[in-house]
Amino acid sequence: MALPVFPRPIIQNDADVGDAMYFGAEQPLDLDSGQQLTRWTVAYKTYGTLNETRSNAILICHALTGDQFVASRHPITGKPGWWEIMIGPGKPIDTDRFFVICSNVIGGCMGSSGPAEIDPATGQPYGLKFPLITVRDMVRAQSHLIGRLGIDRLLCVLGGSLGGMQALQWAASYPERVVAAMPIACAARYSAQNIAFNEVARQAILADPDWKDGKYYLYGVQPGKGLSVARMAAHITYLSESALQRKFGRRFQSPDGLSFAFQPDFQVESYLHHQGSVFIDRFDANSYLYISRATDYFDLAADYDGKLAEAFRGSRTRFCIIAFSSDWLFPPVENKRIAHALNAAACRVSYVEIESDKGHDAFLLDEPEMFDAVRGFLGSVATQEGVA
Amino acid sequence: MALPVFPRPIIQNDADVGDAMYFGAEQPLDLDSGQQLTRWTVAYKTYGTLNETRSNAILICHALTGDQFVASRHPITGKPGWWEIMIGPGKPIDTDRFFVICSNVIGGCMGSSGPAEIDPATGQPYGLKFPLITVRDMVRAQSHLIGRLGIDRLLCVLGGSLGGMQALQWAASYPERVVAAMPIACAARYSAQNIAFNEVARQAILADPDWKDGKYYLYGVQPGKGLSVARMAAHITYLSESALQRKFGRRFQSPDGLSFAFQPDFQVESYLHHQGSVFIDRFDANSYLYISRATDYFDLAADYDGKLAEAFRGSRTRFCIIAFSSDWLFPPVENKRIAHALNAAACRVSYVEIESDKGHDAFLLDEPEMFDAVRGFLGSVATQEGVA
Repeated sequence: MALPVFPRPIIQNDADVGDAMYFGAEQPLDLDSGQQLTRWTVAYKTYGTLNETRSNAILICHALTGDQFVASRHPITGKPGWWEIMIGPGKPIDTDRFFVICSNVIGGCMGSSGPAEIDPATGQPYGLKFPLITVRDMVRAQSHLIGRLGIDRLLCVLGGSLGGMQALQWAASYPERVVAAMPIACAARYSAQNIAFNEVARQAILADPDWKDGKYYLYGVQPGKGLSVARMAAHITYLSESALQRKFGRRFQSPDGLSFAFQPDFQVESYLHHQGSVFIDRFDANSYLYISRATDYFDLAADYDGKLAEAFRGSRTRFCIIAFSSDWLFPPVENKRIAHALNAAACRVSYVEIESDKGHDAFLLDEPEMFDAVRGFLGSVATQEGVA
Repeated sequence: MALPVFPRPIIQNDADVGDAMYFGAEQPLDLDSGQQLTRWTVAYKTYGTLNETRSNAILICHALTGDQFVASRHPITGKPGWWEIMIGPGKPIDTDRFFVICSNVIGGCMGSSGPAEIDPATGQPYGLKFPLITVRDMVRAQSHLIGRLGIDRLLCVLGGSLGGMQALQWAASYPERVVAAMPIACAARYSAQNIAFNEVARQAILADPDWKDGKYYLYGVQPGKGLSVARMAAHITYLSESALQRKFGRRFQSPDGLSFAFQPDFQVESYLHHQGSVFIDRFDANSYLYISRATDYFDLAADYDGKLAEAFRGSRTRFCIIAFSSDWLFPPVENKRIAHALNAAACRVSYVEIESDKGHDAFLLDEPEMFDAVRGFLGSVATQEGVA
């Protein structure tokens, strides 16, 4: 019996994804797994105007569950871009001055090639037939996009969390194409604890009977319960203990207090439920598996015989590393390790550690010190490069 | 169609649970929810010999997933008791000198009344018809057991994690019956982050279709996948980041390195899978819901108008609080808060903070400083009470 095909459970309309760049067999994407994509797509958004010398381009890399809608309304949720606080006219990343590019990572679910997209070889969604990808693959795909856009050198590559890792990988893979890099709230490798949390999230998805070996697209269902649990678990790691205490403490959901029943008695529970339920409307479960696996695999030093400094040896890229004091997913010590390696490689690096109780999420929030650091660093780099 | 009844999916044989004390309508268990158990059971184990003056009894309270097999082989897993390193002849809690009691908490699944047990009113397993319970209910049930054993005063009540909370509750509820209390690696209340992790675990269980609204006993199944995810998530919180890094780091499961497939590539993943799979053989999913909910509800100060010191005002109980430096589930600051409250209530209290990188789990492991503290404190209390 032929099952109905439900490709792209998240995206209903191609126009939703913004711009898209298609690549064919003439420009295959070589992957670290040894596999190759011969027909592939990168969906992206741009903000501002590329100047005549093509010297004012800034690439923003998104985090695990982010997308290209960094500074414009999200087509599914209707919410503002995830970094509108950072990017726009007059903002720290000033679109009156810079040309900002943000692309959906390979493996993602907002229009770039990924497990929810149609495999051109079969006409059906890839599911688990999509090859595993790495952070280096994501960056390699972006490098093709940047080339296609006619940009030789990026003035800056920056991002937080997985976005910061991509910025590091850009600087390591294509030093001559990156004038400056700002890895924020990240690490040069995923720790055992990071991997452990990822694995819990993945197991929650795999345990959902609607996951159906990754072929749920064909059945018109999605493993929403599992994906929701995955999101809830991950979300705890984005906030500091003190932020959770400040925002919610032990406050009750109802003025009647404890219900003595299994329902959300505490505001923190309702908050997590909300995070889980809005997430499943905009994200693909298989993409979560793929992208989280890419982060697990990230260990930049491993590509250089365990010597992180060698990843940057001889690089003329300028770096600014930003860490947040209460980030326990990528604690300051991990960010500092990057700065130390850059020092050891005689690179130009600033390290900014910002006091904040907001945890890992701080990079997405109103953190004036971060805005000052970004504005200052970009201004300095732009002046150096003669960008008006 | 009558479905087959599979009561007690965990315990196959009543003899397995050790001793059991049955209570009837003449001694109902009043619960904080306002409900009452009129036919109820406490399963327990004892070690050592009660002396003639009944003055050498020590009550051990177990943690969320513990049981009465504190110092003897577990009937299901065949493993040694969970605190044999602490309890036995000549050990810090010396069974040549002390009479040690450990009972399965109300709501548990090793023979005490709980959701997996038969509801005498229906002849079927309670499931979610079992009333919600609190830490105070657990302690109230233990107080009936201790009374039935003919013991007026406990020389010491001690335990780690939820066991430590029970020790605190004992001291607050029955100060005249507790000579000394040792709460280890715990807090006087569950934090927002603690509740959040519990809720993720519960949602993982509820998302499992084999949970069947808590009636899985009737179908001969159990929500093993959900319970396993719950255990994995919780397990991360029991270890410190540095302990995970030391034990596993990014070490691969196979000498071939990365598989570029969704299988456990990292040793930390295999470890978590193992923790999940052995857990579901010995624990009941509904018990996990009930006991974790009881911990969420724990906020000792709330019973005293928010003033923790008032919980202990006028008490002559001696306290020794033990915290571990790398415990991020119940960090030292939370343990210290208890000590401060006891100081404010003019109680006798020692506070011991042990440097360890083992995280919350340290209380179950080989921590010589903890053994010294327990041995020293119990020795002092025993001498004070004239216990030979």
